[in-house]
Amino acid sequence: MESMGESRKHVGVLGLGRMGTALAGALLGAGHDVSVWNRSPLKAGPLLDRGAKLAATPAEAASADVVLSCLSTYDSQQPVLEAAGLSGRPLVNLTSGTPEQARTAAKWAASAGIDYVDGVIMAVPQQIGTPVAQVLYSGSEPTFAAQRDVLAVLGTPVFVGEDAGLAALYDLALLGIMWSTMAGYLQALALVGTEGVTPEQFTPMALAWHSAVAGLLPGIGEQVASGDYATDVSALDINAAGLAMLVETSRGQGVSTAVPAVLRELFDRAVAAGHGSHAIASVIEEIR
Amino acid sequence: MESMGESRKHVGVLGLGRMGTALAGALLGAGHDVSVWNRSPLKAGPLLDRGAKLAATPAEAASADVVLSCLSTYDSQQPVLEAAGLSGRPLVNLTSGTPEQARTAAKWAASAGIDYVDGVIMAVPQQIGTPVAQVLYSGSEPTFAAQRDVLAVLGTPVFVGEDAGLAALYDLALLGIMWSTMAGYLQALALVGTEGVTPEQFTPMALAWHSAVAGLLPGIGEQVASGDYATDVSALDINAAGLAMLVETSRGQGVSTAVPAVLRELFDRAVAAGHGSHAIASVIEEIR
Ligand SMILES: NC(=O)c1ccc[n+]([C@@H]2O[C@H](COP(=O)([O-])OP(=O)(O)OC[C@H]3O[C@@H](n4cnc5c(N)ncnc54)[C@H](OP(=O)(O)O)[C@@H]3O)[C@@H](O)[C@H]2O)c1
Ligand SMILES: NC(=O)c1ccc[n+]([C@@H]2O[C@H](COP(=O)([O-])OP(=O)(O)OC[C@H]3O[C@@H](n4cnc5c(N)ncnc54)[C@H](OP(=O)(O)O)[C@@H]3O)[C@@H](O)[C@H]2O)c1
Repeated sequence: MESMGESRKHVGVLGLGRMGTALAGALLGAGHDVSVWNRSPLKAGPLLDRGAKLAATPAEAASADVVLSCLSTYDSQQPVLEAAGLSGRPLVNLTSGTPEQARTAAKWAASAGIDYVDGVIMAVPQQIGTPVAQVLYSGSEPTFAAQRDVLAVLGTPVFVGEDAGLAALYDLALLGIMWSTMAGYLQALALVGTEGVTPEQFTPMALAWHSAVAGLLPGIGEQVASGDYATDVSALDINAAGLAMLVETSRGQGVSTAVPAVLRELFDRAVAAGHGSHAIASVIEEIR
Repeated sequence: MESMGESRKHVGVLGLGRMGTALAGALLGAGHDVSVWNRSPLKAGPLLDRGAKLAATPAEAASADVVLSCLSTYDSQQPVLEAAGLSGRPLVNLTSGTPEQARTAAKWAASAGIDYVDGVIMAVPQQIGTPVAQVLYSGSEPTFAAQRDVLAVLGTPVFVGEDAGLAALYDLALLGIMWSTMAGYLQALALVGTEGVTPEQFTPMALAWHSAVAGLLPGIGEQVASGDYATDVSALDINAAGLAMLVETSRGQGVSTAVPAVLRELFDRAVAAGHGSHAIASVIEEIR
């Protein structure tokens, strides 16, 4: 471990679930002093072995240069934050919630004299501390800037705006992409599985395809921005017909049609609205 | 263009839509002799400038070493194939359809003395001729092997099995991943758009996130294969709670809830079945 000199900070971490443990571990790895608190203190064991200090109360963990909190929900977190006595200190809230919850927390923090930044972690615990982990922040920009060194340890920090709810909005939007993609992948595994194709056989093709799909997203984004849905790539009607085949084939193979059927309805609505010869991007007209 | 010597073939292409035009263009680019037929012959213009021969009938295009067909649907294609008089020739069918349609076409081809391979193109026309384009084939393996040189021009060829319906099954499964991902991305653009975030601002984060999600798919595949859903990554109940927040926030921002709501129902069903503390992979139990 390098000596950190002046940049070494004392960081309090509230919550040692899968994610809180990864956050505290990365901070220890970067040479910061870390105090940890968790409702179930036994979970701190491996972190204590690596040099963390166990705090008996949230307030004890919170007497630090900066405090990170990462619990299941805002509801479970609020009493912990109130018990922590954070007045005059910077708090970076990494618990996931809605934009409204983040704005409410920011208001509470302002009234309690706390410098509040809301963060959302676009990564799983195993990716924390690697550049693939993006962490998005919104709220007090001066507080973000002052803690950027600590936050950069967790993953690539991106400040998205002063509205404290903005990071949570990005989070839900991005998670929605993940849940959609994962549901599509599980549907696919179930479907090919009916003919004896294993995940081991299918996944390499799915990954190559996932990369190819990445190449299509920027063009879709540009079409949404311009509202110009002309296409020399692939027309919506042929994709809607494909979705009909997917629904029919899933039903025939005895696999759930729930997800493909709702996509089919969405695409069909866009075709019915006159977008059949347009690009897939035109489907956004039926979403917003 | 390199001289192709012995490996130069005469390829017939039936159908010059967006995809058929890209296929014929790639074959010309690789130095093959290409005869093209399309219902609307005017579309052949740019290919003729590059050296293709215009066939007046499907049969004229089909008097070649190998014939590729790429029309909208099997229904529009069948009369064209019947008119082409393909007996004794290899036919690679690149029109998309269901596994059942592919099997029916393979039976018809066998009865007509045609060497039949069914192919599905996992790429858009702009990706044809680049390695990112995977093309999956099923049906007659000897015919595939004999035409591999020609097929490799279109993209990376992958033979998935002797059952002629298998490529179409992979196709629908993979397209389902694409449609899910694109719907998730359009939902996300619509949602962040309600707070004035533009596709230009959002897409770089979406792309980085899309890559991070790729890293999670192999682990999900392994869990599906083993049926062991223990997780130190992320539990289903926290993701189901996140989906509830996405639905609520989408509704609050005036955006369609159709897609997130069906994902939420699916995840909630898996939680209700006892998978709350399991990995997201366990959702497959509610799909298959
Ligand atoms: N895991 C991921 O992949 C991931 C990714 C991005 C964001 N996140 C977000 O990070 C946050 C934590 O997720 P996680 O995966 O670490 O969850 P987790 O493993 O289930 O841990 C939950 C944490 O919350 C604590 N907690 C729950 N209810 C509590 C209460 N009433 N009072 C005090 N503490 C309570 C738990 O304490 P005990 O140990 O005492 O139960 C534990 O520390 C969530 O908001 C999640 O959405 C997670
Ligand atoms: N575009 C893609 O991104 C993509 C990707 C993978 C797979 N595919 C598949 O490739 C196939 C072709 O797609 P595409 O994008 O090229 O479609 P497209 O641009 O709409 O072209 C459709 C083609 O089918 C012909 N056709 C339609 N009905 C016909 C009929 N009754 N008789 C004779 N010809 C008829 C059209 O002839 P006219 O020119 O005379 O109308 C045209 O050649 C589809 O099965 C599609 O699913 C496409």
